[in-house]
Amino acid sequence: MANLLGPSGWLTGADTQSYSRDWLDRYGVTPLGVARPASTAEVAAVVTLCRAAGVPVVPQGGNTGLCGAAVATQPGTVILSLSRMAQIGAVNADSATVTVGAGVVLAELHRKLDGSGLIFPLHLGAEGSARIGGLIGTNAGGSHAFRHGMMADLVLGLEVVLPDGTIWNGLREVQKDNAGYALRRLFCGAEGTLGIVTRAVLRLAPEPRHRATALLALPDFGALVRLGTLLRAEAAEFLTGLEFFCDFGLGLALRHVAGLGFPLTSRAPVYLLVELASGSGLVPLDDIFADVLTKGMEAGLVLDGALAASEAQRAAFWRLREEQPEGQRLEGPQIKHDIAVPPGRIADFIAQGAVLCQTALPGTRINPFGHLGDGNIHYNLSPPEAGFGNAAPALAQGLAQLAQAMGGSFAAEHGLGRSKIALADALRDPAERGLMRAIKAALDPAGLMNPGVVLGHEPADN
Amino acid sequence: MANLLGPSGWLTGADTQSYSRDWLDRYGVTPLGVARPASTAEVAAVVTLCRAAGVPVVPQGGNTGLCGAAVATQPGTVILSLSRMAQIGAVNADSATVTVGAGVVLAELHRKLDGSGLIFPLHLGAEGSARIGGLIGTNAGGSHAFRHGMMADLVLGLEVVLPDGTIWNGLREVQKDNAGYALRRLFCGAEGTLGIVTRAVLRLAPEPRHRATALLALPDFGALVRLGTLLRAEAAEFLTGLEFFCDFGLGLALRHVAGLGFPLTSRAPVYLLVELASGSGLVPLDDIFADVLTKGMEAGLVLDGALAASEAQRAAFWRLREEQPEGQRLEGPQIKHDIAVPPGRIADFIAQGAVLCQTALPGTRINPFGHLGDGNIHYNLSPPEAGFGNAAPALAQGLAQLAQAMGGSFAAEHGLGRSKIALADALRDPAERGLMRAIKAALDPAGLMNPGVVLGHEPADN
Repeated sequence: MANLLGPSGWLTGADTQSYSRDWLDRYGVTPLGVARPASTAEVAAVVTLCRAAGVPVVPQGGNTGLCGAAVATQPGTVILSLSRMAQIGAVNADSATVTVGAGVVLAELHRKLDGSGLIFPLHLGAEGSARIGGLIGTNAGGSHAFRHGMMADLVLGLEVVLPDGTIWNGLREVQKDNAGYALRRLFCGAEGTLGIVTRAVLRLAPEPRHRATALLALPDFGALVRLGTLLRAEAAEFLTGLEFFCDFGLGLALRHVAGLGFPLTSRAPVYLLVELASGSGLVPLDDIFADVLTKGMEAGLVLDGALAASEAQRAAFWRLREEQPEGQRLEGPQIKHDIAVPPGRIADFIAQGAVLCQTALPGTRINPFGHLGDGNIHYNLSPPEAGFGNAAPALAQGLAQLAQAMGGSFAAEHGLGRSKIALADALRDPAERGLMRAIKAALDPAGLMNPGVVLGHEPADN
Repeated sequence: MANLLGPSGWLTGADTQSYSRDWLDRYGVTPLGVARPASTAEVAAVVTLCRAAGVPVVPQGGNTGLCGAAVATQPGTVILSLSRMAQIGAVNADSATVTVGAGVVLAELHRKLDGSGLIFPLHLGAEGSARIGGLIGTNAGGSHAFRHGMMADLVLGLEVVLPDGTIWNGLREVQKDNAGYALRRLFCGAEGTLGIVTRAVLRLAPEPRHRATALLALPDFGALVRLGTLLRAEAAEFLTGLEFFCDFGLGLALRHVAGLGFPLTSRAPVYLLVELASGSGLVPLDDIFADVLTKGMEAGLVLDGALAASEAQRAAFWRLREEQPEGQRLEGPQIKHDIAVPPGRIADFIAQGAVLCQTALPGTRINPFGHLGDGNIHYNLSPPEAGFGNAAPALAQGLAQLAQAMGGSFAAEHGLGRSKIALADALRDPAERGLMRAIKAALDPAGLMNPGVVLGHEPADN
């Protein structure tokens, strides 16, 4: 492998350390080595070599995933890091596309587009280290997904190294391509179990020229749902942020994270960060905001609010939302859940989830925050004083069942990885799991592409 | 079968006539019979029965497809019409979703949503007879796709009867669901070759409260591309229609279709119908329009234009575009192509396509019209006086190669069906065709689901 990739392209032993454990430090053994190919041909050569030797391959991007999909759990595995595939092609202004390598860091792409009049509208907490290939592998979501779509919606074309080492060139640059099965969609969210994404053609969006951002205080989650409906009706085409959090989470962030301030006069049960943006300088965003807030206040849905008066204040509002995970992490142990329900069921889920948690583990402190626009709730728990004990699996299963019964998902934007396979096996239609196993067996008959992820280690014909 | 479905559920002989030929009257033999199940369980029973008997099944919606995917070409085939599965569920206003049967006619869904404050934003010429299941099967596009997405983007969840008769319940109601492979995406656009869609959860969008529609005259296709870029930059979030056609096509429509009028003072090489819409009554759409048109005129991109002053005038503008296919049909023989190129390459494609056509068949009259927002060109040809002769396959292949070389597609929104399989086999990466055959063999090992569509009749292991 060192012959193939050069000394900086093949790391072994202690040099693999920074690649071997996942972000939450729950999974990972020392791999056989870390391959760092610099081209698609090198990726194909690594895959071909591993296939011939019967060695499993785990693709890794920025290694920011939360479900353990990008590290090895069996010794004798090769981690294939895409980090050197970091080329960003020329921006095509008239078609609003750009072709990028799988190793491009999301924030680097954002920076590269500065001044082009176009943006890549995917934003999430890990954007400073998450890479395009990993974002495709997990079909990442984030705070702008309800407007611009998830990662799969932003990918027009893909280049993929298939499990047998063949390179599939699917680098189309158009939205409309129905010449066969939706292969590009299949590789998005497959977490590297069907092949390794090496390059992608991405859709860009026009850069907004002005924005209005407000932090609102709400009486309860029922008001949150109804305010969401009102905002969609009155300001749909401008909504770019609809992020909610609760007073418990706010308190954790204010207590543990330095430099945060609370801009409203009094605390409230629920907060909503609303951001409107427009590409046209002729749109009176502040008037639209004032109008919908007046309607919201008259209907009792909004108690109080502050409009950001500067870019600094806007950033401060966003930090209150973005530091929710960090505040809770610094509070101590926690359990994360990545739930989605139809937006209209958010209040129901939070009410019924609270009953479920208090029954399973009295004293559990619940910190639901997330994305109102698509119903994605990061339903994270801090333990009662006695700790979580062994309640975690029962909580996960109970909350997942609750989401599923509402037409939702227990794996909204973080994927299944290794950590949620048991939930999928337990809760999803066996026909669905069977379809996935059939596709996996058809595309990766040797079972060497990221084994144990998405489908577990069951035999493919089970 | 009559026992299973009742007398109105099983048609044979002459009663199958209205189901047996495709829309363009190119394909179709008399089937063994037409099954008209009224429930998912009945669909599953039909599929199970056919599987046991080794009888192929062709699902059929509104039979408006243009590539011959919804009729039988081998005797002894069952056509499974979804037309009785036409239930429309309650609209979920807070989540902006609705669950519908595969047999619902698109225009019927539009009507049902009237007054709800929500719309289903898919619009195409055949909406008066196309059904949801067929629109999913072909992943239909239409004139609003550049803003709201294609059919697959508007489907949140699916119920599918699999080739073995199993019912897969994937009726999720959330945008964010990453609990495994993107199965719902795979069934969208699979043209019934992997299973039969019986129900779907659809995403709705807020209803716009006001609109502005203009018909513009442009000097050439280069101006069209640059005007598209200007419109995206200045009015992106309001663009709901960006439909172009050319003077030859306008002439055909005016000559052959009754009741059309031309609203501008003089003819021009290219026309663009631009429609802006907003959900907010506070947006000055007319001012935004005037501003961008002034910029377009100053840059020499726009020669003339008329803003619709009434709903009747708006409808008249749209008819000029929508009657393009009818005008050309009434002119005589024609060859249709469903091309997509990156929007920035539209002018290049039209220039190079003209050279190609004049070389292959001098005197060919070219009528390119379509969707500027996503680069979808309905590149339709009328013959020279001597007719098309046997030039059709060479023209199709040449134009397809040209589109592909530009990063585009030769099957943008009509699918492959039966008529474009040879193109796909000739032009697409063999790795891609191999992946599709592997998926087909894995999910439909008996090969009884719409055989001969998408992949042709080759053996699955070829």
